[in-house]
Amino acid sequence: KEAQENEKNKFDRSGLESLLIKRFFYAPSFQIYGGIAGLYDYGPPGCALQNNILSLWRQHFVLEEDMLEVECTNLTPEAVLQTSGHVERFADYMVKDTKTGDIFRADHLVKQVLNQRLEDDTKLRSGAAPKAVKGQPKVEPLTADQRAEYELVLETLDNYQGEDLHQLIRRLDIRAPETGNEVTAPVLFNLMFETQIGPTGQFKGYLRPETAQGHFLNFKRLYEFNTGQMPFASASVGKSFRNEISPRQGLLRVREFTMAEIEHYVDPTKKDHPRFDEVRDVVLPLYSATAQEAAAGPTKLSIGEAVEKGIINNQTLGYFVARIYLFLVRIGVDPARLRMRQHMSNEMAHYACDCWDAEIQSSYGWIECVGCADRSAYDLTAHSNKTGEKLVVREQLPEPIIADKWVLDVNKKNFGPAFKKNAKAVQGYLDSLKEGDQWNEARLLDLLDKLNTGKATITGTDGNEYELTTDLIKIEKRTFKEYVREYIPSVIEPSFGIGRILYQLLEHSYYVREGDEQRGVLKFPACIAPIKALVLPISHSDEFLPFIKDVVTGLRRFNISNKVDDSGSSIGKRYARNDELGTPFAVTVDFQTVQDQTVTLRERDSTKQIREKISTVLEIIKDLVEEKTTWSEVEAKYPTFVQQEL
Amino acid sequence: KEAQENEKNKFDRSGLESLLIKRFFYAPSFQIYGGIAGLYDYGPPGCALQNNILSLWRQHFVLEEDMLEVECTNLTPEAVLQTSGHVERFADYMVKDTKTGDIFRADHLVKQVLNQRLEDDTKLRSGAAPKAVKGQPKVEPLTADQRAEYELVLETLDNYQGEDLHQLIRRLDIRAPETGNEVTAPVLFNLMFETQIGPTGQFKGYLRPETAQGHFLNFKRLYEFNTGQMPFASASVGKSFRNEISPRQGLLRVREFTMAEIEHYVDPTKKDHPRFDEVRDVVLPLYSATAQEAAAGPTKLSIGEAVEKGIINNQTLGYFVARIYLFLVRIGVDPARLRMRQHMSNEMAHYACDCWDAEIQSSYGWIECVGCADRSAYDLTAHSNKTGEKLVVREQLPEPIIADKWVLDVNKKNFGPAFKKNAKAVQGYLDSLKEGDQWNEARLLDLLDKLNTGKATITGTDGNEYELTTDLIKIEKRTFKEYVREYIPSVIEPSFGIGRILYQLLEHSYYVREGDEQRGVLKFPACIAPIKALVLPISHSDEFLPFIKDVVTGLRRFNISNKVDDSGSSIGKRYARNDELGTPFAVTVDFQTVQDQTVTLRERDSTKQIREKISTVLEIIKDLVEEKTTWSEVEAKYPTFVQQEL
Repeated sequence: KEAQENEKNKFDRSGLESLLIKRFFYAPSFQIYGGIAGLYDYGPPGCALQNNILSLWRQHFVLEEDMLEVECTNLTPEAVLQTSGHVERFADYMVKDTKTGDIFRADHLVKQVLNQRLEDDTKLRSGAAPKAVKGQPKVEPLTADQRAEYELVLETLDNYQGEDLHQLIRRLDIRAPETGNEVTAPVLFNLMFETQIGPTGQFKGYLRPETAQGHFLNFKRLYEFNTGQMPFASASVGKSFRNEISPRQGLLRVREFTMAEIEHYVDPTKKDHPRFDEVRDVVLPLYSATAQEAAAGPTKLSIGEAVEKGIINNQTLGYFVARIYLFLVRIGVDPARLRMRQHMSNEMAHYACDCWDAEIQSSYGWIECVGCADRSAYDLTAHSNKTGEKLVVREQLPEPIIADKWVLDVNKKNFGPAFKKNAKAVQGYLDSLKEGDQWNEARLLDLLDKLNTGKATITGTDGNEYELTTDLIKIEKRTFKEYVREYIPSVIEPSFGIGRILYQLLEHSYYVREGDEQRGVLKFPACIAPIKALVLPISHSDEFLPFIKDVVTGLRRFNISNKVDDSGSSIGKRYARNDELGTPFAVTVDFQTVQDQTVTLRERDSTKQIREKISTVLEIIKDLVEEKTTWSEVEAKYPTFVQQEL
Repeated sequence: KEAQENEKNKFDRSGLESLLIKRFFYAPSFQIYGGIAGLYDYGPPGCALQNNILSLWRQHFVLEEDMLEVECTNLTPEAVLQTSGHVERFADYMVKDTKTGDIFRADHLVKQVLNQRLEDDTKLRSGAAPKAVKGQPKVEPLTADQRAEYELVLETLDNYQGEDLHQLIRRLDIRAPETGNEVTAPVLFNLMFETQIGPTGQFKGYLRPETAQGHFLNFKRLYEFNTGQMPFASASVGKSFRNEISPRQGLLRVREFTMAEIEHYVDPTKKDHPRFDEVRDVVLPLYSATAQEAAAGPTKLSIGEAVEKGIINNQTLGYFVARIYLFLVRIGVDPARLRMRQHMSNEMAHYACDCWDAEIQSSYGWIECVGCADRSAYDLTAHSNKTGEKLVVREQLPEPIIADKWVLDVNKKNFGPAFKKNAKAVQGYLDSLKEGDQWNEARLLDLLDKLNTGKATITGTDGNEYELTTDLIKIEKRTFKEYVREYIPSVIEPSFGIGRILYQLLEHSYYVREGDEQRGVLKFPACIAPIKALVLPISHSDEFLPFIKDVVTGLRRFNISNKVDDSGSSIGKRYARNDELGTPFAVTVDFQTVQDQTVTLRERDSTKQIREKISTVLEIIKDLVEEKTTWSEVEAKYPTFVQQEL
């Protein structure tokens, strides 16, 4: 099915790629040294495009909601990532070709092999001959059962872990595709880059796999900076690092990438959002977990309806799902190839309790570009428990709450003498019955049951057993009056993979001028175009210089990025070069300019031109860039200027 | 001497530091985990301050001169850094306390101990008692010879390497300051963080210690992007990493930091700069190597004069020295505490042939914050030789150059049969006589001398010896006509340590309001202030809300960052809080606003106010932020509004 979908979206990827290399949007890093997979450098237009996307991101999210921006370090000590679960769980399964030692990510290999078998089968059935691979048996048609099984496995691949995955590989006889050799049993490979911090390996550290942990560790400072007001959000733009087993698909799976992450802290009992009304009527394609199970495809719904119906769990999550959608459309993602897909329970990250991905479709299929996860209180709780530092919100209550609670008291007079130097180990056990400040009622009652039998045998933190009796501790129900409610906030996390968004956007922006396959165009909206306006003399002549300068000075005054192209190339060639850079507007100074101070203004996609005074043209460009007007409106207002298109 | 200087600049550093922590400009990373030395997180105001500095940097350098911005990876394979010399030479000497194992950077330790001895001696002479250190002998006065020797060592410390440094430590009996224990012999410690790229340690890699190498590796693409025009520059903003032996002095010596680097490529025979006239008359304090040798102190000179007199080697270097100076002053560095210091030959980095540092003075002394090095063709040549990739400029000559050159020809008919399978090793030797495309004349003539004796014994690339005779190779002078001049450009590199600049700027900006030691102020110029305008209602009342909204909407339309403070605190407290954030302007809505739509505008440093219509105040703030007017001009034009300062 995926193969069919890719077929449907057939796209001249090599045309785009050669444009991107030629115009140095980005290129493999260290290429003159042979290159390293999964590392890319951004050249001037790629850099400007990324800067523009990030600047709009800051405008759309950070400024709009007074988020608190932070910048935390890439280097992260091991202890932090142990607590967050990354040391143990941030890993993929890999297998090796038993003869060549080539390495594959196990799930990718299964997917690739099964997709190939299905595709070959489809070809066979249509009478075409599948590509023969040297040294491998001839492709035989599949039975209907086999096809069904492969399709099922592909749908549920995320369910296979460890031994299940191993059995699957054996049962379906998955082999290394190029050699046909068997592969080893899958082993877990942690995706974090490891290093040593300090001169003697004082600290084992990693490069962060996400920016989120830095926000969480600073929660207390951020909460204080926000003068204790809730809800609020922190935001961060920075690099993250993942040592992918087999990086591929260009910018879509890389080892070092820019992330923009938001952590929105909210009362877990009040997940409504004060600005929800502003997005309530936004209609967008939602692909819920239920719909995916039924293979029903996404449904277009208003975000208000989705939250009301419980398809999206709460207003805050819904608010961000809508805001993410609006952002992506604003920067130029084609809404017809954009959907919000809910995670199935088996694919959720270890910290998430609900998650919606913005998926963008390209020639590589539907690709996750933004995740919007409800991480609940997972991380703050974990760091708090580990360090003993309270990471809580303290809410002044309008009226005190009166509540009965089970509590445990230690009879200090007897406790110390009874355990002597082991008292700490026993106390450690008692502390483990708490969650933060509060006693865990279930565990307390459990202990009480045992005490009521006369004595309770427990295991101290030193691993030894001890006996507790009612003369040492007392468990009882007591009434409390509370003036402050203390809670660990839930975290809603919109997390943007900037490189992925940028690549998908490039595919959505690319087209070839009708009737001229050599002329590629990138139809960026002006707000993200690396250069907004090209300024060019029609030919090389000193008399044009003062007018060029006037135009450039005017554009600079409006803070509009521009580029003069006074190279010797023909005007058609210069237009074409800037079409490839996605420059939306071009101002040309010609002989008539010298007579009457008018210049032509050309729009990239229509290639239509108007001719007006310099000052008028500058104002028009300003309005176009600031999205106060559209090119159609400009065309309607000013007469088209006709000359031979070169 | 340095101690005296520090004394002179006595500054309430702890006052500033507590403000910076309180307002979360920055804070040690991972503090709830005990922290890691040399790693800092930036909070919201620190982040905004840094973003503003970087945005002005882009404006001042990148946009102003159409530099080509690139973004390259932090992860760097070993081969690249071997070529650049960092694997071998990017290292500091460290010593260990022989008993506790505590680690010190050797030169820092010598400096610290000798400075302490000199300071103690000064105290003794003035009758004061130096601080006694437990377990260490009583401090005795120094002889005049000792004082002179210590001062000389401190001046020339960079000269001591390896065994010299070891002997110095022994001779002066330098010990660990806190324990008084001896230290080990100094050993080199490489400052790069090491990691493995790929799933099986496929590639050894490092985190880059500078962004520069990424520019150089992309030289060919950048040169083509610039359509072959010279000179041009690339620019990059990103992280760099140095595993400092003992990080200290807050943001001044850290393990991860933001750099902004420019690589300006120029014809080594034409180092004049097309825009030099624009800076020719800039006068600035230059501290040349000669002046330093004579301990003469810096001299104020125009950059034009400095280049003419050969104090600064060439126009391009001079141009950037001046531009760097102008940039630092523009963002608020006190020109009285800013100087450009030339490197002494012994302190130059391994790649540099001349270097000027922008040094900024703070309570830590004079600190290097920007380096401006002429790296000559060092890096491009090294990468080109290593990879065989030509990293050259090809200049079309107006007229061909006719030149005689020594060349070597191989007699293929004899050469192959003579060496058979060893031919490659011999050919490798011959290739080593070339530099890029050109034969090295000296080495060719050397070989010719040997050939003229009948035969030349040479060492092949396999390490074995071979004999060459005139029937195998021929060396002769030949006449060439060249239409294209090919050269490896020189690189002038202005390199900015953003964190260092940011910290020094904080010291230069900090003062305490007269008569009120509790009230710290940061007097940032508006262009870099994290928040430009505070908006506040005089008290809590719903009738103010529409006016607050008017002001905020107006400021946003002008893209002026602002913050509403409607907390319950007194207006005085709210002003004070924003003085600490360096917010230059405050707009207050009060009861009169409701009557006549006027608001007050307060300026941070004078604490003076004016009162005008909202629309007028918005225009005034815009002009102030864009530096089209000054507060004195505003005060002169509008009547001062007097009310009790709370």
